[in-house]
Amino acid sequence: MTDTPRSDHPLDEIFHPRSIALIGVSSNPSGMSSGFLTSLLEQGYEKEHGLYPVNPKAEQIEGLRCYPSILDTPDPVDHVISLVPAAAVPGLVDQCIEKGVRSIHFFTAGFSETGDDEMARVERAFVEQARAAGVRLIGPNCMGLYVPSEGIAFMNGFPSEPGNVFVLSQSGANAGDIIHGLAARGVRFSKAVSYGNGADLGAHDFLDYAAHDPQTEIVVAYVEGVRDGRRFFEALQRCARVKPVVLLKGGIHDAGARAAHSHTGSLAGSIAVFDAACRQSGAIRAETMDDLHDLVVALSTDMRRVAGRGVALVSGGGGFAVLSSDAIATAGLEVPPMPQSTIDELREFIPVAGTSVNNPIDSNVRGREAQDRTMRIVAAAEPIDVVFSASLGGFGGRSPWGDGGDDDRTEQERHEAALRDAERSVEDLATWQRESGVPFVGVLRERGMGSGGDAEAAEQFVQGAYRAGVGVFPSVPRAARTIALLLAWRERREGLPELF
Amino acid sequence: MTDTPRSDHPLDEIFHPRSIALIGVSSNPSGMSSGFLTSLLEQGYEKEHGLYPVNPKAEQIEGLRCYPSILDTPDPVDHVISLVPAAAVPGLVDQCIEKGVRSIHFFTAGFSETGDDEMARVERAFVEQARAAGVRLIGPNCMGLYVPSEGIAFMNGFPSEPGNVFVLSQSGANAGDIIHGLAARGVRFSKAVSYGNGADLGAHDFLDYAAHDPQTEIVVAYVEGVRDGRRFFEALQRCARVKPVVLLKGGIHDAGARAAHSHTGSLAGSIAVFDAACRQSGAIRAETMDDLHDLVVALSTDMRRVAGRGVALVSGGGGFAVLSSDAIATAGLEVPPMPQSTIDELREFIPVAGTSVNNPIDSNVRGREAQDRTMRIVAAAEPIDVVFSASLGGFGGRSPWGDGGDDDRTEQERHEAALRDAERSVEDLATWQRESGVPFVGVLRERGMGSGGDAEAAEQFVQGAYRAGVGVFPSVPRAARTIALLLAWRERREGLPELF
Repeated sequence: MTDTPRSDHPLDEIFHPRSIALIGVSSNPSGMSSGFLTSLLEQGYEKEHGLYPVNPKAEQIEGLRCYPSILDTPDPVDHVISLVPAAAVPGLVDQCIEKGVRSIHFFTAGFSETGDDEMARVERAFVEQARAAGVRLIGPNCMGLYVPSEGIAFMNGFPSEPGNVFVLSQSGANAGDIIHGLAARGVRFSKAVSYGNGADLGAHDFLDYAAHDPQTEIVVAYVEGVRDGRRFFEALQRCARVKPVVLLKGGIHDAGARAAHSHTGSLAGSIAVFDAACRQSGAIRAETMDDLHDLVVALSTDMRRVAGRGVALVSGGGGFAVLSSDAIATAGLEVPPMPQSTIDELREFIPVAGTSVNNPIDSNVRGREAQDRTMRIVAAAEPIDVVFSASLGGFGGRSPWGDGGDDDRTEQERHEAALRDAERSVEDLATWQRESGVPFVGVLRERGMGSGGDAEAAEQFVQGAYRAGVGVFPSVPRAARTIALLLAWRERREGLPELF
Repeated sequence: MTDTPRSDHPLDEIFHPRSIALIGVSSNPSGMSSGFLTSLLEQGYEKEHGLYPVNPKAEQIEGLRCYPSILDTPDPVDHVISLVPAAAVPGLVDQCIEKGVRSIHFFTAGFSETGDDEMARVERAFVEQARAAGVRLIGPNCMGLYVPSEGIAFMNGFPSEPGNVFVLSQSGANAGDIIHGLAARGVRFSKAVSYGNGADLGAHDFLDYAAHDPQTEIVVAYVEGVRDGRRFFEALQRCARVKPVVLLKGGIHDAGARAAHSHTGSLAGSIAVFDAACRQSGAIRAETMDDLHDLVVALSTDMRRVAGRGVALVSGGGGFAVLSSDAIATAGLEVPPMPQSTIDELREFIPVAGTSVNNPIDSNVRGREAQDRTMRIVAAAEPIDVVFSASLGGFGGRSPWGDGGDDDRTEQERHEAALRDAERSVEDLATWQRESGVPFVGVLRERGMGSGGDAEAAEQFVQGAYRAGVGVFPSVPRAARTIALLLAWRERREGLPELF
């Protein structure tokens, strides 16, 4: 587990604790605090590290021996997860310093984010106390660490295989959304940190760490506010020089800013300033959570190499193709007409009635061979920079047009056939992309005629395509918008080092 | 089946044929043409009507006796579905006239939409021939009729219960997307027609019929181009005076227009002209297929009564609430701060740490009673016109925070509990909406922390809420955008008759 590359950055030890104590973890398995323990157990953290639940009222929690206080734990404790009420925090910090703890993550909330002056003062006081003793703090009011290579997670269901994407997020819920959502699309993570109020360690610290971390190739940040704008901008600039950085800012309108203030105590600041910081540093600003997800998929597949605005749209369903073409143009890309030579090549095997070959392409020709021939011809056409394969409407679903003569298959036979179809589609997309040198994008439509297919097959398709370097998107407008954002970002980066 | 209200409109007989012949239906169940037959059988059309497959090479198809030609069918035939190749169409029209058929739907494609002058001429010729004989045509190049009250459908899986929404669509695929997609959200349909090239009956005819149809309360149109702009505008104006009309235009950019031309032979025309037609007539223009779906849900639930821009957002997950508040503001609505009296009422039972009561509201309080109390207080607050209940993240999914102590339940027990939860959520939303007089909107998040729940429970929740008059949306931005479109539409309609 610990053979992943390390860095000599001062924060590196925080992401690689040899032991963790959970102070105040509940023995009630339906309590939220016990989720931290079950997540660590799910990842197998205790198999190679020390894991110590601390709760004076329990002997054992989830099969682990429980200790009355952190001072009673048998071995050194590197990292503490604080699940105690706010009033108990100052005493806990004293004990952690005495124990020689290196870092504390405060799930505990109720400090500066409440707007209460006294609690803000308490927050400042324990931050100063910990800093003076060389203990670093994550939070308060946050979910803490996810480090798959070490077996650390803060929610159930996070992937246990490590990857190359680093996530820093003030919000635990948004970090969970990013990790669960992107994991379903095939993405894996180097590390993630939810840091809440950021009273000690803040965005600039984590950006700096991510820039140095050899396991990290792409950086994603959800930020509501920063305490020191200059340090944030400088860290962002350094990080974005060497790695793609995707930033989502929460609190851009009054209501969002008010919510951000009561959420993480953040003063949201001007979106114009934040936007300028992104532009000047060479980071990409995601305007929505969907943008953020989509940009990460694009930056970590061959989509990132897209050379221009020319999209070939290959799809079934004439009306779908019309609306999709409109959506691609609305996003600022093009669906250029095909050269006559391409049209002639396609017309050699595609009949005239009910088809279209002049981009969008609706071949309406069944069979893998005809599809293969279509894709190769289309990808080779001069004005084409990327091919959207939107013929996909799920795998193994009942056709809306007829029963396909397959109604006598068993559920299991259908399921297996769907899995085979999904696998074959991955192979096809990967082959077309590799042999043409033009990025392919799969569009697996969430709704519409072909939906209602086999969920497992769809998941395997999405994740398999991702592993093969092909991005899959839930809709044509989202794929198009993502490419437009990518191209605009690349233009703005002129003069900065090339990232890929 | 036939006790639904009828109108004396001349097109009414087309939507209520007493018998149907399918000419050229394939005996191969995997052929697309046999989908028309299986869809009719799925709806039980043959139980109360005559249904005649015509194919000289088959004795029987799908258990029905097959006839060598339409002239051999034993009884009168009101409606014909033409599945023959383009070259066979003129002969088929002759036979239909001889048989006394009232209407023909041409699935057959390959006419004006190919761009071939000769085929365009053939199209004009058989339209003139049929009209002279009093036979009306749907198409060519389309999917035809869906009339649930008569047992007529053109795709598998359409609901068999009738409803109040009329769909006219040049595209069969888009009609399928609208019907399947909206059906999953609870919507039901009076009639639908996919009319392709619209060589005889066109958008203005169907708008005129929909305006008169007593079964229809809401009209939805997907249009790529119209042959006679003035007649279209007049029909739109008449229809939009008396019923809400949602219009989606395909082919608004060059590529989309090119696609529309090869799809349905449509000359797409200027989007500015189309937009002006919507505005002047009092129709609502949907800019995307998502808009269209969302507007229909809003117009057919209590959402349509929303009185202003003030949204109360009740959700878990602080970061989610921050981004959602931003999205609501971006859409042009407001998330107004709560009056002090509301804050005081909520603080009576909602603790300070980890919660927010000043809109967005994150009560973080579990239990139905506390939720009930929160919703009633929030809905009664003066600046609130609509409540978004976005705490929902699916039913019966494994909590990301812990196992809820329920890990020993069987799959079946979990499933049943999820169904009960869904039912209770419907009851709660319906009660809060009814007793407060303020519309509630459910947001069932597609992704994120709470996802991965029971699919059947989610479906029952969405459809149950809809039947209770509560719209459910897949995201906060989509719900907010829909309300903004609705409010803008209502303002523009000033001076026109009130619709609800």
